This record gives sequence, structure tokens and C-alpha cells, in this order.
Amino acid sequence: MSEPTTHGAGQDGRRTGREGRPTLAVVGATGAVGTVMLGILSQREDVWGEIRLVASARSAGTRLRVRGEEVVVQELAAEVFDGVDVAMFDVPDEVSAQWAPVAAARGAVVVDNSGAFRMDPDVPLVVPEVNPAQARNRPRGIISNPNCTTLTMMDALGALHHGWGLTALVVASYQAASGAGQPGVDRLYDELAVVGGDRSLGQRSGDVRGALEDKLGSAPSPFPAPLALNVVPWAGSLRDGGWSSEELKVRDESRKILGIPDLKVSATCVRVPVVTTHSLAVHATFQRSITVAEARQALVEAPSVVVLDDPEQGDFPTPADVVGADPTFVGRLRQSKDFPDTIELFVCGDNLRKGAALNTAQIAELVAAELTDA
Amino acid sequence: MSEPTTHGAGQDGRRTGREGRPTLAVVGATGAVGTVMLGILSQREDVWGEIRLVASARSAGTRLRVRGEEVVVQELAAEVFDGVDVAMFDVPDEVSAQWAPVAAARGAVVVDNSGAFRMDPDVPLVVPEVNPAQARNRPRGIISNPNCTTLTMMDALGALHHGWGLTALVVASYQAASGAGQPGVDRLYDELAVVGGDRSLGQRSGDVRGALEDKLGSAPSPFPAPLALNVVPWAGSLRDGGWSSEELKVRDESRKILGIPDLKVSATCVRVPVVTTHSLAVHATFQRSITVAEARQALVEAPSVVVLDDPEQGDFPTPADVVGADPTFVGRLRQSKDFPDTIELFVCGDNLRKGAALNTAQIAELVAAELTDA
Repeated sequence: MSEPTTHGAGQDGRRTGREGRPTLAVVGATGAVGTVMLGILSQREDVWGEIRLVASARSAGTRLRVRGEEVVVQELAAEVFDGVDVAMFDVPDEVSAQWAPVAAARGAVVVDNSGAFRMDPDVPLVVPEVNPAQARNRPRGIISNPNCTTLTMMDALGALHHGWGLTALVVASYQAASGAGQPGVDRLYDELAVVGGDRSLGQRSGDVRGALEDKLGSAPSPFPAPLALNVVPWAGSLRDGGWSSEELKVRDESRKILGIPDLKVSATCVRVPVVTTHSLAVHATFQRSITVAEARQALVEAPSVVVLDDPEQGDFPTPADVVGADPTFVGRLRQSKDFPDTIELFVCGDNLRKGAALNTAQIAELVAAELTDA
Repeated sequence: MSEPTTHGAGQDGRRTGREGRPTLAVVGATGAVGTVMLGILSQREDVWGEIRLVASARSAGTRLRVRGEEVVVQELAAEVFDGVDVAMFDVPDEVSAQWAPVAAARGAVVVDNSGAFRMDPDVPLVVPEVNPAQARNRPRGIISNPNCTTLTMMDALGALHHGWGLTALVVASYQAASGAGQPGVDRLYDELAVVGGDRSLGQRSGDVRGALEDKLGSAPSPFPAPLALNVVPWAGSLRDGGWSSEELKVRDESRKILGIPDLKVSATCVRVPVVTTHSLAVHATFQRSITVAEARQALVEAPSVVVLDDPEQGDFPTPADVVGADPTFVGRLRQSKDFPDTIELFVCGDNLRKGAALNTAQIAELVAAELTDA
């Protein structure tokens, strides 16, 4: 932990009563997740001393507000990690791969939200409601935050696994544009501005594609097909056997987080024209016989899960209602009619909050508590 | 079959060379499916004598074009079925329930696209590529056309079942607005006109709902939640155990069409902001060992299936590319890593064409051929 005389003051030098608290660096502070992170850091109980904001050279010098104070964004460099206790990384895989070890070497515990280290056996993959103890076992000084699609269902499945022993998952996702970062959000808004108000589109093959090319020209999209008035069954990059990297993350990360190395998982990941909040249709099979009533009770009791399940009254989770909230929302609970010991559920979670920034903040707070206790 | 002297003339009395051909009635000619049907009847090989267009009193008197000719829409009444050989019904369940038996009693073979008769053991449920012989076994004089969600995957699954013996399906749907008819299409366009161009929406709980209420007031929606910038995990009405009627249709109709009474099926049906074309993520398990290469070959050889499966080149089916086309499009073929004898696929089909009007037209043509041969 850093010396309070060096790191206990606010960015502007005012004494803030934060002496003795750990210093936090937020790397990628200007991105989609970073922006949400600054809001979360301002809302949650403040456990931090100094908070340093770090980004690429392009964004360095920007002034951003966190905890009600203006902070100047610093350029990513080895020196910014000097005296940092915890460094959150919300940056692309290759940036994390290069810089997380640099931060760790300078003494920071890194909480990384990229895919660079998640399957490294020396890096724990942590959901604080599910496997908090894993956060202390970090031989490389790095803790990984799971992929947002996987994270969306982990709180709910962790609660059910605890009681009934999860054995298999068949998952189909409805993933929001912001899973592809701010460029994804920008692109969806650009596309909606083109199609909104044109009542002829979406009725002939290629007409949406044509309208977007007409109006947006060759502006690059992070999506491999139109997203407005469409769904796109692809996220990530191609892996062996025709799987997308996103689909394999759901499988491999679920196994690691839940501690079930032989968990059977098949996932199909599909992007939908939603700004933020991922949804998942989950078919979950258990070792022990489970009823919907039992599953509902376990989910109601899970601290970070909200059950919304009265379809006749219109009560089920949807992204438009869930976005901006911290919990995982679960609805459409059904006992499978034909598959034994199997429950169907529909899960929604804000992919920028619990799916990314919130879980990262929760992990960082676990580390802060550990450092403060030590 | 009707007398050529009575029914062999066009609506306008011109001789059309259609003498001796069966008379067709299209009931629900002005609806979303009916409109597509008139296009399909104009494009396909013309096997019909007279085509009568029938609709509710509200639409009677409208003039519509079919086969290049203008036809006056008649009001639904028992007498319109006199001399009709085949009557297609594209109307709500309760209208079919009342009027299909009336048409059958007047001698017409009814091809009904509602849910009213699909599970009646005396009514065959037909997909011409899968179970065409069933169309001849119609003790009530009624043949049912399957639900559009089920129908989207039947051609592909029929081809795979033929080779490997289907035993189980886990399905998640991405259903288009037009599955709820023209009111669904209108509502989606209305909502997109509100949200398109507003780059603030979709980021806070309820902001889309609020904007729609602001701009659209209390205008009724066929959807139980906003559809723009959202996905809605509900279609149909509530059944026992929290299932939606749509989800049970996928189970019960798949069993009946494929002739597998003990087929295991779990479906989750979700509406997405797409105008037309349903998509399905399908996890299909077979009796016999199956490889992706074998599945691909069988699908390529299926006459009504197109395989689009080279994700690195952006080749996978999406609704925006598939809408308006007749075949079923299949992509994202993967061998399940953990479930034996299981293939994952993503299927797209135009829910107004193969999912409704086209399949109805194909069934009607089977009957026409039978009547002409007789």
C-alpha cells in the first residue's frame, strides 16, 4: 500500500480525509466502460485515496470528473503506476497484455477487464458474489474480470449451482452494441438515425444495407453486418470449428468462475440493436432435482439478483428496463418439460456495469479491503 | 373440383385460359400475410382458376392486384365459399375457428394459417418439404400451416432428421415484429421514428419507455414492452408453468410435423426489433453420430435450404439479408464441444413467406395437384 504522505491527497492537492487509503489507477478512463466506471466510483462507498485517470496519448490532458472532483487524464506510461496500489484496466486485449505486467511489476494489483489473462492458470477470474476468495490467489499480481456475456449470468447461476450442482448450459445471447465499446454505441446510433422514420426498410433483402451505405458511406462499423433492424450472429473472432471467440469465452470462463472443469456448455452469441444490457436465454441442467419454486427462492435470496417473473402482468426483464441498474435481473423461469433437472431462464444485466465496470470495482474493493487489513 | 363453366373465368369475366383449374379463396387478403400471399400467387407458377379475395367487412370493396389483375375484396360470408376448391385462411385464431369449418362444409379444402386447428389429431400439419403425404389425410377438410417460428427451422431440421434421427432441440428465437401482423410492423416503425436520431436513449432504465409514451401517447402496442432498442422475451399468451403459447407451439408442432412424438424440446421465444424474418439459435441432438461436414452436406442438398457459413468472410444469415427470399438460410454450423451427437446452427427464414404465405401456397398447390389429378 502506498505512503499516505505521497498518495493521500486529491489530484488538486486538497486534503480529502483519504490519507492511508489505497491509490487507484483507472486505465482506459475515457472509453465506454471507463466512463461508466467513473460514475460507479462516484456512487459507491469511497475506499480510495488518490484516483489517477490514465488513457492513450490521444485522450491525455482531458479533464474528467470523479467523486465530484476534476482529474486530468494522464498518458499511459510505466511511471503512472508508481505508488499505485490497484490498477483497473478497461482497454483492448493487446493494451492489457503489454501494460498490465508493467503495472504489476511496479507493485500495483491489476484488475483487468480484457480477455488477455482470463484463462491464465496464474490469474484468477473473479465474480465477488461467486468466488471472492480467488481474488487473493494472484501469483502474477493480476486478477481478471470476466467477459461481459459470461458475467451477465454468473450471479444467478452461481446461486443455483450452490444449491443444485450445475452440469450443463445451453445459452443464446442477445448482446448489446456497447459490448463492442463506444464505437459500437456510436455505430448503432448512426444506423438508427438512418433507418428511423423510413417505413420502407427491412422488407427486402439488402435494403437496410443499401440505405446504410447510402447515408453512412464507407464509415467503418465494428459489426460485420447492419445492426439496426437486424440481428448479427457473430461477436469476436473466428476460432476452430466455426466457434466465435465470444462463444468459447462463455464456455471456458463459466467453467473457471464456477469451478466446474467439466461443465458442458454450448453458446450462440448474437448481437442485437440494443445500446446497453446483454440478455441471455439459458437452459441450465443440474445434478440434483430442482423445481422452479426452489430456483426462484434461491434467486430471490441471492443478494445481487432481482427476480421479475409475472409475464401476465408484463413482468420480465428487458434491456430497456434494466440498463443502468446494478443487479442481474432474471425472469421467465420455467421447468423444462422434456429435459430432466433442467430450468429455463431469461437473464438481463447491464454489460457496462455488472458486466464490466461494476464487477471490476467490486474486485478492486476486495483488494483494497485486503490491503487495508494487512 | 369446381365446374369450369362457373369458375374458369377471371374476376372481371375475361377468359384467362384458366378453365378447368381449381378456384382459390384467400381469406385475410388485406393482412400482413395476405399481402405477401398476393405477391407469391403472382410470382409462382399459376395453377389456379378464379382467385377470390376475402376479408372482414372493414376491408370489403378494396381493390387489390393479384396475377396482374385487379380483384375486388369480398366480405367474409358462407356464400363466398360456394364453388371454392381451396380456401387459404390468414386470419386470427378465432376467425379461423369459426369460418374454416364453414368453408370446409361448403366443399373447400381449407389451408389454415392460424393456431386454431394445428394440434387437432384430425388436421394434418404440413411442411411440403418434410411431410407432404400428410396433406391427403384431412378428415375435417382442413390442413394446418405451422406457426412461423416452428416453420423457420423445419426444412433444415427435416433434412437432418431424415439422416440422423432428431431426439432433442433447445431453441432460442429472435422473432420479427411482423410475426404480430401489420400492427406489429406499424408499431415497430412508429417506435423507430421516435428513437432514431436520439443519441441519449437506451442508457437509463425506462428512458425508451418514457420517450415512446411522450411521443406515441397511449397508442396500443401488440408488444408488452418497447421493441425499439430492446428485446422482449414474450410472444403469445401465458400457459401453465410460465410457458408462452409460442414456446409450446415450437415444441408441439415440431413433434407433429417431424413425426417424433417424444422429441425433447425447450424453446425460449423473444421478440427483436426486426421488421420481418425470424431467426433461431438451434441446439439439435441426434440418435446417430453426426459431424458438421455431414450436416452441411445434407443441408446443401436440401432443395429449400441455403447454407451461408463462412464467418470470417462475414457469411452467416441475418434477417436484413434474408427478408423477401423463399429458402431457409442456415449458418454458424458447429459441432457441440460437450454434448454428444449435437450440432449448433443459426437459422433465418422470412416469417411472412416460408413462415406463412409461401408454405400455405405450397400446401394449397399440393391440394390443387391432387384435385387436378383426380
